[in-house]
Amino acid sequence: MQAYQDLMAHQRQTQALAQISGRLGWDQETMMPQGAAAQRAEESAALQTVIHARRTDPCVGDWLAALSGADLPPEAAANIRHIQRDWDKARRLPADLVAALARQTSLSQQAWAQCKTDENVAGFLPFLTDIITLKQQEAAALQTPGQSPYDALIDDYEPMMRADDLAQMFAALRPRLADLRARLKDRSRAPMLQGHFPKAAQLELSQRLALAFGYDLTRGRIDLAVHPFSSGSGTDVRITTRVDEADPFNCLYSTIHEVGHACYEQNIIADYALTPLGQGVSMGVHESQSRIYENQLGRSRAFCNYLYREMTARFGDMGLSGADEFYAAVNALRNGYIRTEADEVQYNLHVLLRFDLERALFEGDLSPADLEAAWNDRFAADFGFAVDRPSHGLLQDVHWSCGLFGYFATYSLGNLYAGSLHKALRAHLPDLDSDLERGHLTGATDWLAQRVQRFGGLKSPHDTITQACGFAPDATHLLDYLEEKFTG
Amino acid sequence: MQAYQDLMAHQRQTQALAQISGRLGWDQETMMPQGAAAQRAEESAALQTVIHARRTDPCVGDWLAALSGADLPPEAAANIRHIQRDWDKARRLPADLVAALARQTSLSQQAWAQCKTDENVAGFLPFLTDIITLKQQEAAALQTPGQSPYDALIDDYEPMMRADDLAQMFAALRPRLADLRARLKDRSRAPMLQGHFPKAAQLELSQRLALAFGYDLTRGRIDLAVHPFSSGSGTDVRITTRVDEADPFNCLYSTIHEVGHACYEQNIIADYALTPLGQGVSMGVHESQSRIYENQLGRSRAFCNYLYREMTARFGDMGLSGADEFYAAVNALRNGYIRTEADEVQYNLHVLLRFDLERALFEGDLSPADLEAAWNDRFAADFGFAVDRPSHGLLQDVHWSCGLFGYFATYSLGNLYAGSLHKALRAHLPDLDSDLERGHLTGATDWLAQRVQRFGGLKSPHDTITQACGFAPDATHLLDYLEEKFTG
Repeated sequence: MQAYQDLMAHQRQTQALAQISGRLGWDQETMMPQGAAAQRAEESAALQTVIHARRTDPCVGDWLAALSGADLPPEAAANIRHIQRDWDKARRLPADLVAALARQTSLSQQAWAQCKTDENVAGFLPFLTDIITLKQQEAAALQTPGQSPYDALIDDYEPMMRADDLAQMFAALRPRLADLRARLKDRSRAPMLQGHFPKAAQLELSQRLALAFGYDLTRGRIDLAVHPFSSGSGTDVRITTRVDEADPFNCLYSTIHEVGHACYEQNIIADYALTPLGQGVSMGVHESQSRIYENQLGRSRAFCNYLYREMTARFGDMGLSGADEFYAAVNALRNGYIRTEADEVQYNLHVLLRFDLERALFEGDLSPADLEAAWNDRFAADFGFAVDRPSHGLLQDVHWSCGLFGYFATYSLGNLYAGSLHKALRAHLPDLDSDLERGHLTGATDWLAQRVQRFGGLKSPHDTITQACGFAPDATHLLDYLEEKFTG
Repeated sequence: MQAYQDLMAHQRQTQALAQISGRLGWDQETMMPQGAAAQRAEESAALQTVIHARRTDPCVGDWLAALSGADLPPEAAANIRHIQRDWDKARRLPADLVAALARQTSLSQQAWAQCKTDENVAGFLPFLTDIITLKQQEAAALQTPGQSPYDALIDDYEPMMRADDLAQMFAALRPRLADLRARLKDRSRAPMLQGHFPKAAQLELSQRLALAFGYDLTRGRIDLAVHPFSSGSGTDVRITTRVDEADPFNCLYSTIHEVGHACYEQNIIADYALTPLGQGVSMGVHESQSRIYENQLGRSRAFCNYLYREMTARFGDMGLSGADEFYAAVNALRNGYIRTEADEVQYNLHVLLRFDLERALFEGDLSPADLEAAWNDRFAADFGFAVDRPSHGLLQDVHWSCGLFGYFATYSLGNLYAGSLHKALRAHLPDLDSDLERGHLTGATDWLAQRVQRFGGLKSPHDTITQACGFAPDATHLLDYLEEKFTG
């Protein structure tokens, strides 16, 4: 077992360096002086070079070879499975392709930002085409027997998931969501909060909510950032939020969402820290936690009654007639073009659109030149109105300019998982609503911590969710929940 | 010149990693959640291991050998001089000694903190004795021909400085400072500020002062920390300060002091960033900048008039009769035991005491067992009253438990350099006081930036100061300034 000890010691240092890299990213978004950007880019690149060299160090291959076929206890076996997977992937990628992708995504992100401002799809298309070509090369390099090229890209974010399986799960979602959306289309009179919501009071309440949802501030902190995120694993898991003084839901629900991500990291078995098991197992499982905290718990009728009392105590009259209107405001459905601003019903329609387009691009059924038309056709079909400008359509998200093909799907997968976890949670906690009415989340969050979060990377993503639920995740759970919530 | 290019590319990545290490240190003191300490220690250790491996990479030796005797332009030659010096030192230290020192200083710091609380010199003595033994081994390993063991330790903080030269400079200081202190001994009636000084107003004024002294907030930021410090080089140089709502001078002069350090780093020629020239050349030269900002400029009569107006505008009546009393309060001399709380006259007496004791320890003239008696005798001789408890004497500073022998001297060397720079500055800027009266610091700080700071590590520390002044630094400049200020 010397090989295992040596491999894990090496891995532990690599994970520690990766944590530092994450901390630098946090600093960049929250604390870094604006003039430090170029130097920081060089510092981050130096650290990435070190981390990459450690990940592809021939020693790792030697240790893995020495351990091949060894009879290991479950946690050691899971560690080896993760390390072997990373090692194989890192080794399969040619260094010049990695460099070309780094260069081209950097250029493309700048081009995307400018083209989005200019509503200029034609200007962005050459960059997008180059990125897609490089990602096709990456997919070809990474592909294992039985994987499609798109599978190989998805695997980076959702290990062991296949496009066909996603497509099957999502196939059940799209028609019922589109139908539900159409049935709910008269939403012009959805109530809105009125008034001014001072920053300090929003942040105080958002911290209170973070604590109520189980976030441990002795092992984390809350700061402001333009785009809220969660960062870090082990005993240093930080979140950010943002404040709009006209729209307190932005801050409060961003906080609850990021707390879902952060609690997943904080609740992993402590012994797993700085090992491959010491972090959330996939983007989809991560998103299941952030979404169930934010939506199934945070936007529930019972919790909204609690939140209405807390907000009334702080902000006074919000121009609402009572808790019913407050709940309606929290869950207002409105026509919109933008994925990140969408409600629970429409959000997944945005994501499925992207997933299907990506799949067609990487299966050769769609060329980048036809992407805008395909986007706009699909949008009109699912949402019932037309995209009015590229920044509301094809150019709205940064992901593709960064080369993140395969990522979008994990958002809807997370929602689907959240729907199934919520079904299981309600079965286990029949009195949940009376807890939520009082702002008591610990029954629900402890259940998630014990059933999902604590295992970190020990199981596969699918096993993590299935074993937590006691049944296989399925789109009908989410759909039934949405149907009942929005038409019940 | 390929060897030079390769060496510098390697060095640049190492410097980038060292900057990251500095940023982690900043985070630890300002932002890190309390529960993250153990994980952070492991992360920092992993990064230090990487940096150390790069510093002692045999490639560095090969490149240096290839460049040996090469005819290089001045900046390249200075880079090579620094890299050669670091390489030689890193190679001379046995790995087991480095590990033993890391372990023992960690234990000793904990023991020191406890023994200081308990006023227990006997309990600390075994730890101190072990540290001194290890530092003697380190000195023996590092010593070059012509260096004494203590010289070898000083060289870590003040390259190329010798204990004998320091002793000669300091020999002029001690009797005149002790004499000045004795002549000024009736200071029971020194005025003190009265009132409550709200944190927000202190921080607003301290930021205003930071900007006035030339700190560039687009390449830095100000946060709170228990012990103020400056951190980073290049385009990311951050400072910290602290707030005592009963004593605004603590915040304001800590800020000005750290701004002196930070401006030194910010004003180095931009092309030197991430090279050995891209940081302050020594602790002594660094301290000369922080001290001249804080004392010769910040505590000057003219600047105090400006500061009195600014503080009165913010805090109203401070229980003072006017600007004369304000100046007396800023420059109050009081009996005290604690180095870090000492005024301009007494501060160096505290430092010289430590320097002479360290020198005796490392030259074999003093054993650790006799250290407390030697401290207390010396204190009584120089300050005219007796140490009343170990936490006011031998146990007051953390330095020795960290193994920082040779460090204290740089505080007084910096003060001495500041005295000489101030003499030159006054000669070049005869109208300085009328600027300071209006809070206009740019004449003075530009002079320091152009004469001292911009050169970074290009010249030796001594040349840096001598060429800036136009004459050799000498204790009489500081002494004459203090004599005039406090008895004039």
